[in-house]
Amino acid sequence: MSLNINEIRKDFPILGKKVGEKNLIYLDNAATTQKPARVIEALTSYYHHANANPHRGAHYLGVSATKLYDDSKDVVKEFIHAKSHREIIYTKNASEALNLLAYTYGMTFIEEGDEILISILEHHSNLIPWQQVAKAKGAILKYLYVNEEGIIPSSEIKEKITQRTKLVSVTHVSNALGTINPVKEIIDQAHKMGAKVILDGSQSIPHMAVDVQELDADFVVFSGHKMLAPMGIGVLYGKEELLEKLPPFLYGGDMIEYVHEQESTFAELPERLEAGTQNVPGALGLMEAIGYLENIGMDEIEKVERELTAYAMDKMEKLDFLEIYGPRDIKKRAGIISFNIKDVHPHDAATILDSYGVAVRAGHHCAQPLMRYMGINATTRASFYFYNTKEEIDVFVESLKNVRKWLGYGS
Amino acid sequence: MSLNINEIRKDFPILGKKVGEKNLIYLDNAATTQKPARVIEALTSYYHHANANPHRGAHYLGVSATKLYDDSKDVVKEFIHAKSHREIIYTKNASEALNLLAYTYGMTFIEEGDEILISILEHHSNLIPWQQVAKAKGAILKYLYVNEEGIIPSSEIKEKITQRTKLVSVTHVSNALGTINPVKEIIDQAHKMGAKVILDGSQSIPHMAVDVQELDADFVVFSGHKMLAPMGIGVLYGKEELLEKLPPFLYGGDMIEYVHEQESTFAELPERLEAGTQNVPGALGLMEAIGYLENIGMDEIEKVERELTAYAMDKMEKLDFLEIYGPRDIKKRAGIISFNIKDVHPHDAATILDSYGVAVRAGHHCAQPLMRYMGINATTRASFYFYNTKEEIDVFVESLKNVRKWLGYGS
Repeated sequence: MSLNINEIRKDFPILGKKVGEKNLIYLDNAATTQKPARVIEALTSYYHHANANPHRGAHYLGVSATKLYDDSKDVVKEFIHAKSHREIIYTKNASEALNLLAYTYGMTFIEEGDEILISILEHHSNLIPWQQVAKAKGAILKYLYVNEEGIIPSSEIKEKITQRTKLVSVTHVSNALGTINPVKEIIDQAHKMGAKVILDGSQSIPHMAVDVQELDADFVVFSGHKMLAPMGIGVLYGKEELLEKLPPFLYGGDMIEYVHEQESTFAELPERLEAGTQNVPGALGLMEAIGYLENIGMDEIEKVERELTAYAMDKMEKLDFLEIYGPRDIKKRAGIISFNIKDVHPHDAATILDSYGVAVRAGHHCAQPLMRYMGINATTRASFYFYNTKEEIDVFVESLKNVRKWLGYGS
Repeated sequence: MSLNINEIRKDFPILGKKVGEKNLIYLDNAATTQKPARVIEALTSYYHHANANPHRGAHYLGVSATKLYDDSKDVVKEFIHAKSHREIIYTKNASEALNLLAYTYGMTFIEEGDEILISILEHHSNLIPWQQVAKAKGAILKYLYVNEEGIIPSSEIKEKITQRTKLVSVTHVSNALGTINPVKEIIDQAHKMGAKVILDGSQSIPHMAVDVQELDADFVVFSGHKMLAPMGIGVLYGKEELLEKLPPFLYGGDMIEYVHEQESTFAELPERLEAGTQNVPGALGLMEAIGYLENIGMDEIEKVERELTAYAMDKMEKLDFLEIYGPRDIKKRAGIISFNIKDVHPHDAATILDSYGVAVRAGHHCAQPLMRYMGINATTRASFYFYNTKEEIDVFVESLKNVRKWLGYGS
């Protein structure tokens, strides 16, 4: 690797932490990532020097807060290659962004008998909102299913996306299996059939260069906290001409034009879709996080994570007591490895791994329909970020062997 | 005053700031408050030592984050004297909490012909959501009007709250005029008529002891950032038996029980109303903020602010070029003074005051119907917190005279 990971790790205060006597090995990055000092210091600096309610104040601090907030939108816009800062709407997380689309786009444009298409890989936050829209509007919720490697086949895309399809909402990368979905193919087919496409970028935008215009996605959502930024800030991107057509979602301060006792008119984008006091330091933290990622370079981050994943997969595939889910082809998966240890409950596995300082996640990963489709209840999931090392993966793999030993099985 | 304000001010790093060559005099506390070092350090400490996605991890950091998040709920519960931590729902701000109630309580329980009653003092975030519910359900949105001092008379409460009233949603303290509303009287009358009551506590809970059980409010909302806590965290309190009846608002992770491809069932309170990754450091910051406020004591805070307000009102009433809005009786107003300077646009006033380091707000204060009702377009608003001083008010009042001079009027 050309990156000096040991230098990079010094930027992340928590990565030097001990869990008991063990070094923390944080492999739960698909749930949330750790934060570099630069992002944490941005929060402190904001509250020390610039804190005010933006957009409403003629005073010095109000102007400072407004400028920081607006600057961050420009940075996000550049990062995902949107056309305009008016296409960037802040939410509290990706889940809110998806719900916003369900309440506004879904409840306005989906009609009785329309088909909404999602994939069986979706996180609950890109699944239950569409169940609700389908129920409310008398629409039909359909699924793109995956093959035994967790990959959506081209045949499935061609068969399921038809002229009856009004909306396709799919994840770019599966949080449960790590599959990188063929989203360009899905978007092209959807547009050919006149359907709009929502992309859940929560697991892709932190890990690879994503150009929303090149993909031609109609809407993209993602969360700041999964890409080095603070908790409490998420992004909804939408093509301006589509966002223009959405009714407001939350009503309140900043999103209005004129308010009368019985009627109101609403502001232009992006304020129209952002009600109440926004999380300004969250936006500022996101700007710093993007600055940090761009200093390394998203292509470099993707490359480093692919190397880590290949290294881990290679070692894990040699353990005959492991069942590994998702694509075997390393080019079709991101830095997420979901697995089960023979005869061991995933929660026990995670608990024992924790005793070695290794933080992984166990459960259904908010993807119960996928688990049921695969005939399992839960998996253990290790998920990497560019700050992880091969040495950490060595400890993780050794610990997997110890899980078996602890429970009285041979290694 | 028994509080040593100069010592207290040292806890707030930003209060020592200069605006150009002037000391910052921050009188925009109704928009957002500044933060003590303890709250800022809680954010840093969280990201240095405990950051993880709560409720889903068996690992050390996940357990830490979950514990901090749950502890903060207990602290909020005690602070407002709720019965159970299950009655405390986190949102991103008070606006989201009000919208949540409109989308869930409003869209479920308000029926055609029902009356929803709000006051003319409401912030847009407690007004437009009810316009939307009234429109969607064929209900009638009615207003409690105020007298020339901005006070809702008892006669208005008796006349407007009737058996046709299904829901009353009122602010405890007006953000635009500072009026303390007779909420106990409103709640009692509403309950007598079988109506439920939502209280917007955004401007009261940071400034006085509020006991939700004593008030018998059905729902109460407030924002963390107006009470020393970080931006991005708000609270919805509701009586447990009422929250139990609400359908979910946002759908996604953590709020589910079982998810099938076409149907889902939902978790118990409070998770059912909290979807996606929550703002854990925001919750932690709110806990620290409450700890800070309680160390001083809410009764002491109310007393200090009342003294400041009386001191300011006394000085301001002597300026014959000022029109001051809201109650004359100091016991009927909180630490918010809204005014206009004769022949001066409020925005010009705020801009000139800023050149003296004095941060106030100018505009409609997200209360356009109130402004229209009062026959004005906007006001300038000074709003205090316990960390303000009489010396700051002296500078503020002197600066008011200078605004006139700057614009070529006699003082």
